[in-house]
Amino acid sequence: MIIKNYSKVIPTIFDDEPAKGLKGRILIGNADGAKNFCMRIFEINKNGYTPRHSHDWEHEVFIHSGSGYLYENGEWVPVKSGQAVFIPGNEEHQFKNSSDEPFIMICLVPSNAPEL
Amino acid sequence: MIIKNYSKVIPTIFDDEPAKGLKGRILIGNADGAKNFCMRIFEINKNGYTPRHSHDWEHEVFIHSGSGYLYENGEWVPVKSGQAVFIPGNEEHQFKNSSDEPFIMICLVPSNAPEL
Repeated sequence: MIIKNYSKVIPTIFDDEPAKGLKGRILIGNADGAKNFCMRIFEINKNGYTPRHSHDWEHEVFIHSGSGYLYENGEWVPVKSGQAVFIPGNEEHQFKNSSDEPFIMICLVPSNAPEL
Repeated sequence: MIIKNYSKVIPTIFDDEPAKGLKGRILIGNADGAKNFCMRIFEINKNGYTPRHSHDWEHEVFIHSGSGYLYENGEWVPVKSGQAVFIPGNEEHQFKNSSDEPFIMICLVPSNAPEL
């Protein structure tokens, strides 16, 4: 088994367009022997956002803390801690933080997708 | 896309051996169109525990809140909110709560495993 404190994993910083104020970490991936799907964690700082994009693969998201908005079909939908989000492949999406606190979410992808 | 508040999903209660004080919910699964892996959430109440078992498939776990112990190789290892746990297939495991607060974890399995 492998146990990791997420905050001790060195993050990759995304702070230029198309993302701002974003830290990404691979928590469980190929390097850990996970062959079917990959768990990442993203922290979005105040005023930060993920890229607006779509891709072939799906996301399974759980919002660990904070609150923000999810771009879906041309609208910003409020989301918050304790919610799960399923984004099927080829659906355009973007998350942004709407508060002073970090917005932290777990986001899983299948193993044929880029890990980060 | 599908957005769900986890607490609004009707839980399955496990309160007889081999599990006690345990609620399980499927957050993102086959019924949602998720074909590669399944996200569940488990709440372990005070003094509760999951079954001690092993199986072919892996678990990818993220501890959302609380603190407890994970049985691993004959020992109880402390675990807490903010930690990720990878349990490869065929490794015996069990979680138990060690506090007065619920121990809440996200646990993902590949799509060839039972969803709950």
